[in-house]
Amino acid sequence: MSSPESNYAELTKELREIAVLSSIGSVLHWDERTVRPPAGAEHRASQVSLIATMTHARFTSPRIGEWLAAVEASDLVRDPHSDAAVNVRYTRRSYDRATKLPPSLVEELARTSSLSEHAWESAKKNSDFKSFAPWLSKILDLKRAEADCIAPGKNRYDTLLDEYEPGETSANLRVVFEALRGPLVELVGKITSSGRKAPTEILERNYPADAQEKLAREAAAAVGFDFNAGVLARSVHPFCTSLGPGDTRMTTRYDEHYFGDAFFGTLHETGHSLYDQGLPSEHFGLPRGEYVSLGIHESQSRMWENLVGRSRSFWKHFLPKARIAFPNATANVTEDDWYFAVNDIRPSLIRTEADEATYNLHVLMRFELEQALLSGDLPVNDLPAEWNTRMQKYLGLTPPDDARGCLQDVHWSGGGVGYFPTYTLGNLYAAQFFEQARKDLGDLDAMFAKGEFAPLLGWLRKNIHTHGKTYTAGELSQRVTGKPLSPGPLLAHLKRKADELYLK
Amino acid sequence: MSSPESNYAELTKELREIAVLSSIGSVLHWDERTVRPPAGAEHRASQVSLIATMTHARFTSPRIGEWLAAVEASDLVRDPHSDAAVNVRYTRRSYDRATKLPPSLVEELARTSSLSEHAWESAKKNSDFKSFAPWLSKILDLKRAEADCIAPGKNRYDTLLDEYEPGETSANLRVVFEALRGPLVELVGKITSSGRKAPTEILERNYPADAQEKLAREAAAAVGFDFNAGVLARSVHPFCTSLGPGDTRMTTRYDEHYFGDAFFGTLHETGHSLYDQGLPSEHFGLPRGEYVSLGIHESQSRMWENLVGRSRSFWKHFLPKARIAFPNATANVTEDDWYFAVNDIRPSLIRTEADEATYNLHVLMRFELEQALLSGDLPVNDLPAEWNTRMQKYLGLTPPDDARGCLQDVHWSGGGVGYFPTYTLGNLYAAQFFEQARKDLGDLDAMFAKGEFAPLLGWLRKNIHTHGKTYTAGELSQRVTGKPLSPGPLLAHLKRKADELYLK
Repeated sequence: MSSPESNYAELTKELREIAVLSSIGSVLHWDERTVRPPAGAEHRASQVSLIATMTHARFTSPRIGEWLAAVEASDLVRDPHSDAAVNVRYTRRSYDRATKLPPSLVEELARTSSLSEHAWESAKKNSDFKSFAPWLSKILDLKRAEADCIAPGKNRYDTLLDEYEPGETSANLRVVFEALRGPLVELVGKITSSGRKAPTEILERNYPADAQEKLAREAAAAVGFDFNAGVLARSVHPFCTSLGPGDTRMTTRYDEHYFGDAFFGTLHETGHSLYDQGLPSEHFGLPRGEYVSLGIHESQSRMWENLVGRSRSFWKHFLPKARIAFPNATANVTEDDWYFAVNDIRPSLIRTEADEATYNLHVLMRFELEQALLSGDLPVNDLPAEWNTRMQKYLGLTPPDDARGCLQDVHWSGGGVGYFPTYTLGNLYAAQFFEQARKDLGDLDAMFAKGEFAPLLGWLRKNIHTHGKTYTAGELSQRVTGKPLSPGPLLAHLKRKADELYLK
Repeated sequence: MSSPESNYAELTKELREIAVLSSIGSVLHWDERTVRPPAGAEHRASQVSLIATMTHARFTSPRIGEWLAAVEASDLVRDPHSDAAVNVRYTRRSYDRATKLPPSLVEELARTSSLSEHAWESAKKNSDFKSFAPWLSKILDLKRAEADCIAPGKNRYDTLLDEYEPGETSANLRVVFEALRGPLVELVGKITSSGRKAPTEILERNYPADAQEKLAREAAAAVGFDFNAGVLARSVHPFCTSLGPGDTRMTTRYDEHYFGDAFFGTLHETGHSLYDQGLPSEHFGLPRGEYVSLGIHESQSRMWENLVGRSRSFWKHFLPKARIAFPNATANVTEDDWYFAVNDIRPSLIRTEADEATYNLHVLMRFELEQALLSGDLPVNDLPAEWNTRMQKYLGLTPPDDARGCLQDVHWSGGGVGYFPTYTLGNLYAAQFFEQARKDLGDLDAMFAKGEFAPLLGWLRKNIHTHGKTYTAGELSQRVTGKPLSPGPLLAHLKRKADELYLK
């Protein structure tokens, strides 16, 4: 009989090789979105599908189940935070998810998601919710079936949420999100009625793309992005992807008449990248070397984008550089005006264009609506009306059509139910970690104003990045900040900013 | 018992899937040379090695041998130029090559080549042949062993040559190359002693990279490169690669103080790409859909680079465009001067920088030397002296050091013995095909001067590209030009150019 140690060794060896195979899929994906010519689409689909099939076959092999069983029964996993325990626990979770779904359901989900995304695209284009409704119903049915296969009898939404945010529950989120919602609606209301408007015209002047790229690279490098182990390229839809140790990539796009898009977009993707570059590469391919959850990943991007990148101290350091890069656009712009312009807060219809405060109200709505859709409490046909009611209640706006209402996001059409909350989780964790970092490190603003970002990055490396999946998001929050997830730090941050810019 | 038809169907299905897998390796290679950050090298090596191992395992599976045997004995392959016969014949050839080598030899070749390339790099840097000599001896030993495994008792050089140029023999090449050498040495001697020098300073003025790229793209598109199914990017060492149907890619590099590098480099890679884009995509993954040989591939690149791109008629059409792109650099430049500048012919030390005439003398030398090295007639330690002797004899120059002599090329260090002749084969076939195209199509120069390149491309598609590997290079030459490979057309072309520019 083989020992638990040898089973564990076999398991991790195979997992690492599967991870290399899977990372080849990431190269294909990167290339797809940055280089591939149009006519190569069909062949690329064959390549992607071959890698996915091979990866799936190896990961769902009964051998994996046997190795897991042999180790799970052993002392190797007694300490739940040991490397072995972490690797076995999360591999079991993924293995069960991958093997419990019947192939017919996997196939139907893949096919329906793809068709449904196409239907959504044209429905959005024509603002025609009716044509999309049957697809949404079908997707919801399949997601219910998926949840029932994975965890029969368990709350379905929680099962789907768990895919993106391991260990999180809708009950916990409801408590936290509802405590956030009231004060946030109130704060946004006050900002709107203050009558003050940020001088956003400043950001809409002429910003040549090459100069934008140079400044974006300078900012990414300044906060710690390692260009020796990473790439910044261009793509229509910005994203970040890690192809393996030493190879983390991100993209942005340059709008010559809006400075904010590329600059804050790059800081956002840099935040994601810094997390990937900080994961322990010796554990590559194993849960011990992977990110905690989408919420924690988003907390890293939002921290660098908003808490650092939209701070006054950050611009004390970077505005002089922006003046050199864009002498015409920034002529006669004061630091106060610039700071206000990059912190424009106002209700708007589109989530992806929303500011750091109102963004969360978009997410909260979707979290509430997708639970009601999944449970059946909200019939699919009633979605547009319910959407518009909540937009009016939370943001004081009514969409002129469904394209700018319930059809704006791709997520549901592709089966992404339970994904939205991770965006606001990111903002909450970001603020909570940042508050703690400030306590631990002292005057962060004085550091930022001098262009010193290494202390904050070092703090994140030590407290978050280096642990991989050792702790869940909730455990990490407790360990690092001494508190569970809470809305307090984000609300305090937003109130401070509102007081300074809108309510003083 | 299964029918030959069903065996053939199984074989081609598996070959197509192996080709998709192998094409994923090409994506990794492309990314490696255009995007990958330095620190990602090690992980990339793991990815490349995993794909190579999986591809090799599937291609050398005994199933392939069984399917081949079942079809080889059948009527399916009776007509040697039928699709099935072509596919079976070339798959047999590759299968035997892949399975006859013992894994230990494959492993030793891979390891030694890699170490030897490193040794060569530093030997070249220090112009220190002595430190490289033991590596070259080891490589030659391994290549002898490889040849003996593949075809025991056969001329070893022919076995190695056959890898790159199927069906070609050193005996035939010697006849053709020797018939080329004498007249070419004589012609180059006349040009040198004519005292006339091309006004190359014109090409060394300021050529901004962006304007160069724009013109290079315009030229590539004009001669037929399909940008909907292809990409032109930048890399340190220009190359062309096909990732599959609809996805052919090439790179170049821009030297702002030398116009020729990027422009003719792009035309060269475009020639390769046009061949790839013209291969029958319905046969992707099978020999019927593959290029004939390296020599034929090179004939396509050289035709567009030299026979088209350095013709006077080409510049009747493109010089006006170059004048718009580079108004300063081309001010006061006459068409005569420009034409002469892009046709500078003069002996030089470095093969990769040589003009279209002297280039072949560099290749002929290497062809002669590598045969003598492999047979043992030339001891490795005598290579530098013998190199310099031939340089003096053919080109009238003596390298000041081995870095600019026998250490200049990477090929031998990586095991590429038998590769060099394909370069001159490319020039010979290009001239021979071009002469025939001129006979078949009429006044090509009048077409080029009007920017009409479609007739020539159509002719190449019909006579060469569309056939894949149906005919060997020799058969193709006979079919298309009615003659076997011969030095006549290239010599005639070079003599015409020399007469016009140097000897009139």
